[in-house]
Amino acid sequence: MELEQILPKDIERRSFEIITKELGDRVLDPVNASVIKRVIHTTADFDYVQNLVFSREAVPLALKALREGTPIVTDTNMGMAGINKRALKKWGSEVYCFMSDEDVARAALEKGTTRAWAGVDKAAGLKEDCIFAIGNAPTALVRLYELVKEGRIKPRLIIAVPVGFVNVEAAKELILSLDVPYIVARGRKGGSNVAAAICNALLYQLPFPG
Amino acid sequence: MELEQILPKDIERRSFEIITKELGDRVLDPVNASVIKRVIHTTADFDYVQNLVFSREAVPLALKALREGTPIVTDTNMGMAGINKRALKKWGSEVYCFMSDEDVARAALEKGTTRAWAGVDKAAGLKEDCIFAIGNAPTALVRLYELVKEGRIKPRLIIAVPVGFVNVEAAKELILSLDVPYIVARGRKGGSNVAAAICNALLYQLPFPG
Repeated sequence: MELEQILPKDIERRSFEIITKELGDRVLDPVNASVIKRVIHTTADFDYVQNLVFSREAVPLALKALREGTPIVTDTNMGMAGINKRALKKWGSEVYCFMSDEDVARAALEKGTTRAWAGVDKAAGLKEDCIFAIGNAPTALVRLYELVKEGRIKPRLIIAVPVGFVNVEAAKELILSLDVPYIVARGRKGGSNVAAAICNALLYQLPFPG
Repeated sequence: MELEQILPKDIERRSFEIITKELGDRVLDPVNASVIKRVIHTTADFDYVQNLVFSREAVPLALKALREGTPIVTDTNMGMAGINKRALKKWGSEVYCFMSDEDVARAALEKGTTRAWAGVDKAAGLKEDCIFAIGNAPTALVRLYELVKEGRIKPRLIIAVPVGFVNVEAAKELILSLDVPYIVARGRKGGSNVAAAICNALLYQLPFPG
């Protein structure tokens, strides 16, 4: 196997060409294609062609939310590190992760729950509706489900892509039952990297504002 | 599909039970098993049973390096965010990512290469031999290969797990040809999350020093 001579700036374009070629006859919904392809680019895993489920108009609604400067709340520092903050800042937005916050740790301890659960509660107190990018904690999805059902929050988008073996699939199914915009990675697979990739795939569809 | 009632502290243990059960008859080398299982825990992808290749004694040599406070150099801020820095600090060590450093950006621009490549050069200038945890950039692996071949560095461990479609597999094969301790995810799969998971799987095998 030989190394291909390629300029750094051309690697991403070439990668997407390979992905498109290997998708072959599998037809992607053109509205969702760039999200699906970027997740494959991040994972080298074509299972996401089947796994990713989009609510109706999820992508255009998410793009509208991002243009309006909607903040992103994520459940891991890894996810936060992976989201393109420069692109986000151009739209007057930013990304929050409350997992290391002292008040969140205290609330989780008091209530015998996870910090991810308590972090969603904290996000519910923000003055704006948010985009949630959940790549790790099914408990964050459960709490989002409860707060939406109680009418206490109206997420602009829920990216529900935790990875794992315990309660991950069931928690994602809860989100699939909601009447909010969502992008869900059905099944066990996902991760903070997938959550960040979806955020970036959305951001890269917006014109880079001057 | 129902949510299982489980305490937050028990989720990880339960996840590893499920992984062990689903591995079934597949026998893992006991020395490498906890690394392999943690990567599966991070990805929900059992392909890593086949993909992960360990040089002889890689795990015990890595544990020795970590006990001695060997620093970890990684090629992404996501990887850095995912590594358990509290565990690392207990052994007097830390993790570096040079990707955002101005001198690295300048060197990459001057040489027409990637910041990952230039970042490895910067790591080569550290006074200690390092553990390299490369989850993203095949160019970092190519540069590591060159510097090892030239006798300029002696990595204590190379974790070679970039994900992707261009030069990723070939760059990993270069590392497999080296006479240094390595853990390689053969093929296209991997990622910053996998790099961090391997570092953590190693750290969690050490006694938590008082």
